[in-house]
Amino acid sequence: MNNKPNLYTCFSPALLHLYDLSNSVVVIIDIFRATSTIATALYNGARSVIPVDSVSRCIELGKQIEGITAGERDGKIAEGLEHGNSPFEYTREFIEGKTLVLTTTNGTRLLQMALDRGAREIITGSFSNLSVICDHLMIMKQNVILGCAAWKDRVNLEDSLFAGAVISEIGRYFSINCDSSHMAATLYKTAKNNLFDFMKEGDASHYHRLMGFGLEKDIHYCLTPDLANVLPQYENGKLIVK
Amino acid sequence: MNNKPNLYTCFSPALLHLYDLSNSVVVIIDIFRATSTIATALYNGARSVIPVDSVSRCIELGKQIEGITAGERDGKIAEGLEHGNSPFEYTREFIEGKTLVLTTTNGTRLLQMALDRGAREIITGSFSNLSVICDHLMIMKQNVILGCAAWKDRVNLEDSLFAGAVISEIGRYFSINCDSSHMAATLYKTAKNNLFDFMKEGDASHYHRLMGFGLEKDIHYCLTPDLANVLPQYENGKLIVK
Repeated sequence: MNNKPNLYTCFSPALLHLYDLSNSVVVIIDIFRATSTIATALYNGARSVIPVDSVSRCIELGKQIEGITAGERDGKIAEGLEHGNSPFEYTREFIEGKTLVLTTTNGTRLLQMALDRGAREIITGSFSNLSVICDHLMIMKQNVILGCAAWKDRVNLEDSLFAGAVISEIGRYFSINCDSSHMAATLYKTAKNNLFDFMKEGDASHYHRLMGFGLEKDIHYCLTPDLANVLPQYENGKLIVK
Repeated sequence: MNNKPNLYTCFSPALLHLYDLSNSVVVIIDIFRATSTIATALYNGARSVIPVDSVSRCIELGKQIEGITAGERDGKIAEGLEHGNSPFEYTREFIEGKTLVLTTTNGTRLLQMALDRGAREIITGSFSNLSVICDHLMIMKQNVILGCAAWKDRVNLEDSLFAGAVISEIGRYFSINCDSSHMAATLYKTAKNNLFDFMKEGDASHYHRLMGFGLEKDIHYCLTPDLANVLPQYENGKLIVK
């Protein structure tokens, strides 16, 4: 018998129904690039990030609250929006004090699903804010679900690697009766000395999609720990840093 | 441009809808213990194995065709059936020339789903028949889906490891634009020198479930390559060796 809280890794939104979210902190993971960009914008002083699921909703809400609208479809800034998904767009000079309305496909959808399924707390995680996420989960002593946003429900390497990084850091403080978590941790152990090369050799599908769009710099950034160490918490429809 | 067929790994039946089965050979993988036992029974001369999804259907069909009925629920032979899921029960002395009606939960369900989704060909794979599976997939030169039966839709280590073993052997003959496959291959590379210890250290959930039932011998058997090298092919409701 132990009193450790449970930790699970959910590799795809299509598997989320298998987990009890009502008593858990859910970490939304969308490494390329939604949750990396969210951490960066908040780190650089954005007042909040509002994730929305469609371009039209992004435009509408952006007008209502005079926010910065951002989002891409197929690697290009979506028509009618002002900015893209790259963390490099959200410098302090640009985003401080502003509200970012961000539309992404996979990450936003998973966040909405977690909300609908009554998650106790929702935060967003990325390598950019790895240490803060780990510290928070340790302090909370609640059950944890590491929720990978994946790519159109298909399991991806980068989100799984981040789950593995969290488990490598703080797994010993949790009870882990979850093979996905062991897979993620093993994967990360193999890859951690050079995540970038691992993604390249691993022929990761999303990596190649981004490289095709000339986003090597973004990929490097999104795989580097602790460049934007803030804790984005979801409250009343917004991601904020308390 | 290359002309290699595609290979995908599907970690859970809940993800099967993401793949196009109509033009693919689907390998049903349920290492502990359905597909290991199927290979063993056929290797030892069973005329066929008929997978069914319920105990009542197993009893009914067993009577109709005078077959051997087998299946477990929660680690015990299910009430009304004659035999269990252990490959060790299916020696040549016992099973030769007979028909085995086998009810399992995860494996049978995935097989039925693959059938419903119009799979071009369905075969069952396990470490017991690893080499024959690899040879067949190479010769066929068709698209392949390595379908893990998982545990009540949760991703498991042992089925993922087998997918990784297949990819290690023959992955180079396929085009693999599938992060799950890269994860499985990496996992297998890490584990291959001692699969048993890896499962133990990995704290694999199903491994512990079986160990709790005193089935260490079964686990060793099910992780050993090529002890029952036959190709179980699904045709007209039966798994047979042509």
